[in-house]
Amino acid sequence: MASESEAQRALQYEQTLMYGRYTQDLGTFAKDEAARLRLQEGDTPRPRRPSELLEYTQGRCAPCRVCALQCQRFLISKVGEDWVFLILLGLVMALVSWAMDFAIATCLQAQKWMYGGLDTNVLLQYMAWVTYPTVLITFSAGFTQILAPQAVGSGIPEMKTILRGVVLKEYLTLKTFVAKVIGLTCALGSGMPLGKEGPFVHIASMCAALLSRFLSLFGGFYENEARNIEMLAAACAVGVGCCFAAPIGGVLFSIEVTSTFFAVRNYWRGFFAATFSAFIFRVLAVWNKDEETITALFKTRFRLDFPFDLQELPAFAVIGIASGFGGALFVYLNRKIVQFMRRQKTINRFLMKKRLLFPALVTLIISTLTFPPGFGQFMAGQLTQKDTLVTLFDNQTWAKQGISDEFEYLGILEAWRHPRSNVFVTLVVFILMKFWMSALATTIPVPCGAFMPVFVIGAAFGRLVGESMAAWFPDGIHTDSNIYRIVPGGYAVVGAAALSGAVTHTVSTAVIVFELTGQISHILPVMIAVILANAVAQSLQPSLYDSIIRIKKLPYLPELGWGHHEKYNVRVEDIMVRDIRYVTLNCKYRDLQQVLHSTKMKNLPLVESAESMILLGSIERTQVGALLSSQLSPQRRLLALRQKVLSEDGHRLSDSTIRFQISTETSSGTPARPALRKPLKPALKRVPSSPADSPPAGSTDHSGIALKNLFCANASTEPTEAQGTARHKAKRVRISIVEEMILGDKMTPAEILEWEEQQLDQLVDFSSAKIDPAPFQLVEHTSLHKTHTIFSLLGLDHAFVTSIGRLVGMVSLKELRKAIEGSLTGKGVKVRPPLASFRDSTASTTEADTTALRQLWDRHQHHHMPREAGPGGDDDDDTPRGQREP
Amino acid sequence: MASESEAQRALQYEQTLMYGRYTQDLGTFAKDEAARLRLQEGDTPRPRRPSELLEYTQGRCAPCRVCALQCQRFLISKVGEDWVFLILLGLVMALVSWAMDFAIATCLQAQKWMYGGLDTNVLLQYMAWVTYPTVLITFSAGFTQILAPQAVGSGIPEMKTILRGVVLKEYLTLKTFVAKVIGLTCALGSGMPLGKEGPFVHIASMCAALLSRFLSLFGGFYENEARNIEMLAAACAVGVGCCFAAPIGGVLFSIEVTSTFFAVRNYWRGFFAATFSAFIFRVLAVWNKDEETITALFKTRFRLDFPFDLQELPAFAVIGIASGFGGALFVYLNRKIVQFMRRQKTINRFLMKKRLLFPALVTLIISTLTFPPGFGQFMAGQLTQKDTLVTLFDNQTWAKQGISDEFEYLGILEAWRHPRSNVFVTLVVFILMKFWMSALATTIPVPCGAFMPVFVIGAAFGRLVGESMAAWFPDGIHTDSNIYRIVPGGYAVVGAAALSGAVTHTVSTAVIVFELTGQISHILPVMIAVILANAVAQSLQPSLYDSIIRIKKLPYLPELGWGHHEKYNVRVEDIMVRDIRYVTLNCKYRDLQQVLHSTKMKNLPLVESAESMILLGSIERTQVGALLSSQLSPQRRLLALRQKVLSEDGHRLSDSTIRFQISTETSSGTPARPALRKPLKPALKRVPSSPADSPPAGSTDHSGIALKNLFCANASTEPTEAQGTARHKAKRVRISIVEEMILGDKMTPAEILEWEEQQLDQLVDFSSAKIDPAPFQLVEHTSLHKTHTIFSLLGLDHAFVTSIGRLVGMVSLKELRKAIEGSLTGKGVKVRPPLASFRDSTASTTEADTTALRQLWDRHQHHHMPREAGPGGDDDDDTPRGQREP
Repeated sequence: MASESEAQRALQYEQTLMYGRYTQDLGTFAKDEAARLRLQEGDTPRPRRPSELLEYTQGRCAPCRVCALQCQRFLISKVGEDWVFLILLGLVMALVSWAMDFAIATCLQAQKWMYGGLDTNVLLQYMAWVTYPTVLITFSAGFTQILAPQAVGSGIPEMKTILRGVVLKEYLTLKTFVAKVIGLTCALGSGMPLGKEGPFVHIASMCAALLSRFLSLFGGFYENEARNIEMLAAACAVGVGCCFAAPIGGVLFSIEVTSTFFAVRNYWRGFFAATFSAFIFRVLAVWNKDEETITALFKTRFRLDFPFDLQELPAFAVIGIASGFGGALFVYLNRKIVQFMRRQKTINRFLMKKRLLFPALVTLIISTLTFPPGFGQFMAGQLTQKDTLVTLFDNQTWAKQGISDEFEYLGILEAWRHPRSNVFVTLVVFILMKFWMSALATTIPVPCGAFMPVFVIGAAFGRLVGESMAAWFPDGIHTDSNIYRIVPGGYAVVGAAALSGAVTHTVSTAVIVFELTGQISHILPVMIAVILANAVAQSLQPSLYDSIIRIKKLPYLPELGWGHHEKYNVRVEDIMVRDIRYVTLNCKYRDLQQVLHSTKMKNLPLVESAESMILLGSIERTQVGALLSSQLSPQRRLLALRQKVLSEDGHRLSDSTIRFQISTETSSGTPARPALRKPLKPALKRVPSSPADSPPAGSTDHSGIALKNLFCANASTEPTEAQGTARHKAKRVRISIVEEMILGDKMTPAEILEWEEQQLDQLVDFSSAKIDPAPFQLVEHTSLHKTHTIFSLLGLDHAFVTSIGRLVGMVSLKELRKAIEGSLTGKGVKVRPPLASFRDSTASTTEADTTALRQLWDRHQHHHMPREAGPGGDDDDDTPRGQREP
Repeated sequence: MASESEAQRALQYEQTLMYGRYTQDLGTFAKDEAARLRLQEGDTPRPRRPSELLEYTQGRCAPCRVCALQCQRFLISKVGEDWVFLILLGLVMALVSWAMDFAIATCLQAQKWMYGGLDTNVLLQYMAWVTYPTVLITFSAGFTQILAPQAVGSGIPEMKTILRGVVLKEYLTLKTFVAKVIGLTCALGSGMPLGKEGPFVHIASMCAALLSRFLSLFGGFYENEARNIEMLAAACAVGVGCCFAAPIGGVLFSIEVTSTFFAVRNYWRGFFAATFSAFIFRVLAVWNKDEETITALFKTRFRLDFPFDLQELPAFAVIGIASGFGGALFVYLNRKIVQFMRRQKTINRFLMKKRLLFPALVTLIISTLTFPPGFGQFMAGQLTQKDTLVTLFDNQTWAKQGISDEFEYLGILEAWRHPRSNVFVTLVVFILMKFWMSALATTIPVPCGAFMPVFVIGAAFGRLVGESMAAWFPDGIHTDSNIYRIVPGGYAVVGAAALSGAVTHTVSTAVIVFELTGQISHILPVMIAVILANAVAQSLQPSLYDSIIRIKKLPYLPELGWGHHEKYNVRVEDIMVRDIRYVTLNCKYRDLQQVLHSTKMKNLPLVESAESMILLGSIERTQVGALLSSQLSPQRRLLALRQKVLSEDGHRLSDSTIRFQISTETSSGTPARPALRKPLKPALKRVPSSPADSPPAGSTDHSGIALKNLFCANASTEPTEAQGTARHKAKRVRISIVEEMILGDKMTPAEILEWEEQQLDQLVDFSSAKIDPAPFQLVEHTSLHKTHTIFSLLGLDHAFVTSIGRLVGMVSLKELRKAIEGSLTGKGVKVRPPLASFRDSTASTTEADTTALRQLWDRHQHHHMPREAGPGGDDDDDTPRGQREP
C-alpha cells in the first residue's frame, strides 16, 4: 500500500510537472505516458473495438475472421502512413480554400450588386457601400472575440513560435479553427485591404492538428510529438500552397517564414501536400466551369521571345531598392499604429469597453475613402483586390504613347481611368492611400493577413515605374532592328514580388509570383529586385512577422544578421549569468526553501556539492516546491504527531493516507489525458511573477500552509488545460482545506512552527523527484554563433555552462537575445570588442581548463578539497562536509 | 625555463592532436590557434603590413596618415563582408561556366567539322568520329589521374560529406580545381553522355575555398570554420545555378542534395550568389551576341492559354511512376557496373596496370554505336546533348497526324527522322541505348556528372509518351468547341524533371526545368510526376549520390525513410555500446596502456572514478598516447637516472631538455600554419587499424621505444598536411634516434624495463592533457529519431550516453547507421518490436533514474560506495580508493 501511495504521488507530480521535459525527449515521454495510461485503462472496463473483440471470439469461421482482421489491421496501419494524412490534409484545405473563395466572391458581388442597384441616389449608395463592410468586419471581430480570441491576426508569428517548440494554448483547437474560418471569410468579404495568406497558414496548421487527433483514433502513430511538429511544418506549406495555388512557393515561403533550421527530410511532405492541395484547389475551379483547364491564378500573357531588355535592369533594381525602403516603412508604420493604440490610455480604455468600435471605425474611414463616386475615383476604389491585381498585371501599356494609338480602357480597366487626371496620378494616389490603409487595416482584431495588400501595393508601384519607363522610351530601349516595347505588366510583377519580399523578409515571393502569374520569363529581374529589397529591408526593420512576435511578446530568438562579424568573437563566458542558484545533492530542505525564494528560474541545476559543483542534472522549480510541500505536509506532521503521542500501530495512519490520495486522484486525474498532448508548455511564459513565484517573505512562520498553497497554485495552473482548470482548482483547494480541518487541527501553530523548523533541517530525499538527467550543456568558450545555432536547432530555452563537469553559469534565451540584439543595436548587453577573444585566449582560457582539472585531480590525490568562492547560492551548507567525515 | 618547456610540449601535443575538437567549437579553436601564432610571430621579425608600420611612424602628416589608415581599414573590413565574397564567387563561377561552355562548344564543333569534311569516305569518317572522343577522354582521364585523382567523378557525394563536417583531404585545393576544370572540359568536349552539373558543384566549392583563402590575406574573418562551411553551402548553390542559369532551382537542388538540416539563415547567401552568377552567365551570352536578351537556356514556346487538359494528367502520372522505376534502375545499374569492375580480379588487374585503357575502351564502344551512318542513325547519334534537348522540347508534334499535314523535319530535327522507321522506333532505341551508355559512361574515371544524361533520357521518354498520346488523340482530348492539340514537348519537360528527380531523389528538378525552359505553365503535371517518381525511386534504391557515397565508403548517416514508424520506438539504450573503455581521473599509467591496447576508439571518456562513473569529459586517444610516451620518455628516464646517480643540480638537465624541444619545434613547427585551416580531420577515417593503433602486444618490455614510435607515428600522420609530411616524419624519426643515441644508451634494457614498470605504476598527471570538457551526451531514453536528428544537426560522430552524470554507454555513427539500416532492411542490428518501449517504459525506466540517483544520494548520505559491476574497463584500479582514505 505504501508503494501504491508513492506511485500515486509520483503520478500527481508528473501531471503537474509535465512540461519541463521538452528539451529532452518529449516524444518518448508522451509515449510513455500513453502506455502507462493504456495499461491503467486495461484494468477498467472500457468499450473494446471490434478488432479486439474478434480475438476473443471462437467459432467455425475463425480463419475467415482472422483474415478480415488482418485486412482491417492493414488498413488501419495504412491510415497511419504519412501520405494518407497529407492527402487528407491537402484535400480538406483545398476544399476550405475553395469554399472560402466562393463565399468571399459572393460577398463582394453582393456589395457590388447593392452598390450598382442604388445608382439613383448617391447617399443611399454611400450608405450601402459603407455599412456593408462595417457590419461584416464588426461581426467578424465580435464573433472571433467571443469564440476564440486566438484566431485574431495572421497566425504566422504564432506558428513560428509553435514550430520552435513552444505550445501556445488554444491555438490549434477546433473552436479557433471555426472562428478563424468564419471570421476570415467575413473580413475578406468586406473588401477591406486584408489578406488570406497568413491566416491560411494558421488554418492549415489547425486542420493538421485536428486531423492528426482524428486519425489517432485509428492508429497509435499520431501521438508522437516530434512527428506532429513535422506535420505542422507541412501544414504551413499547404496553407500557402492552396491559398495561391503555388505549391513550390508555398513550401519555400512557409520554410522561410516559420523555420530557423529546416530538416530536408520534411521537404517532400510539404511538396506532396501542397501540390495535392493546389491541384485539388484548381481542379475545383475547372469543375465549377470557372476555368477551362488548370492554369495560374493571375495568368499573365507577356511575350516570351523578348521579355525585357538588359538595359531595363537598372529600373528593376530601383524597384527593388525602393521596395526595400517601402517594406521597412510598412513594418514600422504597422508597429507604430499598434503601439500608439496601446499607449493612448484614454482612447484605449474607451475602446476596451467597446471592443467592436475600433474595427467599425477603421472600416468606416477606409470604405468612405474608397467610395467610388467620392475619393475612390482617384484610386480605382471600386475594384476588388483580385480585380486590382488582374488589371495591374495587364499586358497592355496604359499611358498614352503618342496620339495615334489611343489606348482604350476596356472592362474593369475602366476603373483606372479618370477623365481629369492621368493614370500616373491615379497610381500614386492608389499607392499612398492603400499603404496606410493596409497598415491600419491589418491592426484590426479580425483574422487577417498583410501579404496580399502589400502584394497589391507592390504591383501598383511596379506598374507606376513600368508606365513611366514606357512613357520615357515609347519604342523600347533596344536599338536594333526589332522594336520591343516595354511591358509595364512585367514591372508590376517585379514590384509585387519585391515589396512582399521586403515586408516578410523572404526570397520565395519570387517563386510565388511565378506560380501566380504562370510565367517565369522575368526570373532575373524578379530575383534581383527581391534580393535588393530584402537586403535593404533586413538592415532597417525586422520582418512583419518578427515585429508582431515582439509586439505580442512571444518567446523568440532573433536571427543573426547579415555579416555581423563581431558576433563570431563573442563567447558564452561573455554573456552567461554566473550568479545562479543551485540545488546540491546533500542540501537541506531549508536550502531548497531559500533557493525558491531567491530565484525565479524555472529549472534549477542540481550539483553534487557546493565544493565540487559537478552538474548532475536539472530539477524543475515545481519539483522543488513539491519536495518541500511533501516534507511539510500535514500528513507527515500528523504521522509524526501520532507516532510521538499515541505510539499506536500504523493501521489508522495508512487509512488516512489513502483517503488523501484518492481525493488527489479525483482532482488531478481528469486532465491527464489531454495534458498528454501538450507536454510543451511554454517555459517562457509572459507572466514571470505569478503568485506562485513570489510568496510574501514574512510568511515563513506558517510555511506549511504557505508552501501548501504555493504547491497547489502551481499544481493547478501548470497542467495546461484551460477548460476545467478553475473547476479542478476549486475542488482541490476545497479538498485540501477539508483535510486541513480533519487532520491538521490537533497541533497549535507554535507546535507546527517548531515541527516545520525541525523538518527543514533534514536532508533532502531526492529519490521521489523527477530530475532531467541531461540538461543541455555548453562550454565557456562556445561562440555566440554556435550557441545561437544550437539554441535554434534544438529549440532550447536555457543551457547550463560547465567546465569539466563543473557548473559555472547559465545561458537562457534572454541572455542570448540580449547579446544578439546588443551587438546589432549597440544597446543592451555590452559585447566585447572584436579582438577580445584573441586578447585573452592566448593563455588564460587554456589555463582555465587546466587549472580546473588540476584542482579536481589534486582533490583526488590528496583528498583535500579547498573551499572555493563558488558562484553564489547556498552559503550555509558547510555541515554536510563535517557529516561526511566518518 | 621549465614553464617554457611545458608550453613547448603543449604546443607539440596540440599540433599532433588538433583534429579531435571538431565536435565542440572548432571555429573558436582555430581562432585561438591563430591568435597564439600571431602573438608568437610578434616576437620574431616578419614583414609588416603598411597599415601596421604607419602606427609606429610619428611625423607631421600623422593625422592624414591616420585618416588614410582608417580608409584602408574600412576597405579591408568591407572585403570581409559576405556579399563581396559572394559577388566574387558568382562572378568567377559565371566566367568559368561560360568559358567552359565555349570551349566545349568549340570541341564539339571541331568534331562535327571533321566528320562533315570527311564525308567522302565512311571509314575515315568513322575513324575521325571515334578517335576524337577517345583521345579527349583518355587525355582527361590521364590528366586528372596525374594531377589530382580527387577530381574524378561527380563531386556532390564528397561535398555532402564535407558539409557534414568531415574534411576530405585535397578535395578543395587549387590543383584539384585545375584538374577538374580541364578534365571536365575535355570529357564534355568528347560528346560522351556526361553531365557538367555535379562537377560544377565541386568546382564552385573549390572556388569558394580558394577565394576564401585569398581574401583572408586582407581580413581576418575568413578564418572561421563555421563560416567557411556556410560559404561552401552557398557555393554548391552557385555551382548548380550558373550551370543551368537556374538560381532558384540551383539553391533548392544543392540544399536537397547536400544538406540534412538547412539553416534558413544561409538561404539568402545561396540565392544572392546563384542569382548573380546566373545573371552574369546569361549576360555573357548576350554580350557574345549569342542571344538578344536574357532568356532561358532551353527556351520553350508552348501555348499559355491551354497548356494541357485535365484528362492528360493520368499520362503524366504514368511518366512519373515509370521514371521512378527507371531512376532506381539507373542507380542500380550504375552501382552494379562499378561493383562488377571491382570484382573481376583479372580484368581489374589488367586495367589497373593500364589505367587509361578502360576509359578508352568505353569511349570506343559508345562512339562506335552512335556513329551516325552506322547504328547512330536509329538513335539520332549525330546530335549533341544540347541539340538533343532542344529538339526534344520542340513545340511541334513529330508523329504523323493524318495525311494532310505531313510534318517537315527542319534543321537539326532531321536527325530524328529515319526513312525506314518512324519516330517511335528512333525514340525507343535512343532511350534504351542512352540508358546503359550513360550508366556506363559515368563510371569512367574522369570528372563527370550524371544529371544531364539522365535529364536527356527523361526528356526522350516524356517525348515518347507525348507522341503516343498525340497519335492516340489527334485532335486533343478536350471535347468542347475549341480543339487543343496535345503538346508532346510538354511531356518531354515532365519526363526530364521526373527521371532526373528520381535518380537524384530531389523535388527541385521541377524548379530547374521551369528555369531551364522559361515556362512554368506545366507546373502541376511536373510536380505530380516528380513526386510520384521520387516516391517510387526512394522506396527502391538510394539516390545516385548516396549510392556513390556507399561505394566510396565515405562517412555517412542514412536518412530516416518515409513513414517508418517503428523507428519512433527505438531508443538509445537499445543501440548503444555498453562495454566501453574509459579513463579514470585517478588511474595509473598502466591503466592507460591497457586501455590503449584494448580499444580502437578515437575518443576515450574520462570519468571521475570507476565507482562514480561521473563523466568529466573526453580525451583523445592520441592524447593518452602522448601522456604515456612523455611519462616513459628517455628524457625523464635520463633525468631520473641523473638525479639518482649524480645528484647534481638541475642545470645540465634543463639544458638537454631544451635541446630536445628545439629539435621538436623544428620538426613540427612548419605544418602548424596550414594545419590551422584543417582542424576537421575525419574522425571516421577508412583505415581503422593504422599501425599506430595496434602495436604488437609483446612489445611492452621495450615500451619506452615502442610508445615513442607509436607517438611519433601519430604525430606525423595526424597534422593533415600531405605534402611535406613524409619529409618531416623522416626528420623527426632521425632526431629521435639521434637523441636515443645520445641520452638513452646509458641504461641497460633490463634497467629500462624496471624503470618503466616503476613509472607505469605512478598515477597519471592529466594537467598537461587537452580534454574536451563537454562531449555530447545523450540519455538512455532518447529516441532513435531524436538521436538521428541531433547527430545530423550537429555533425557528431559519437556521443556518450549518461544517466545523471554517470557514463553508461556510447553511441557512434556506426551503431546509429546499423540501427537505421537494420530497421529498414531487417538485417544488421535487431531493432526492438514496435511496442518495446511501451512494454518496459511503465516502471523500469523511471525506476532506473530513481535508482541511480538514490545510489548517488546514498553515497553522499553514508559515504559508503558499493562497488558496482560497472561496464567493463579498468578492473585493476582498486588501489586509489585505499589511497584516498586518509
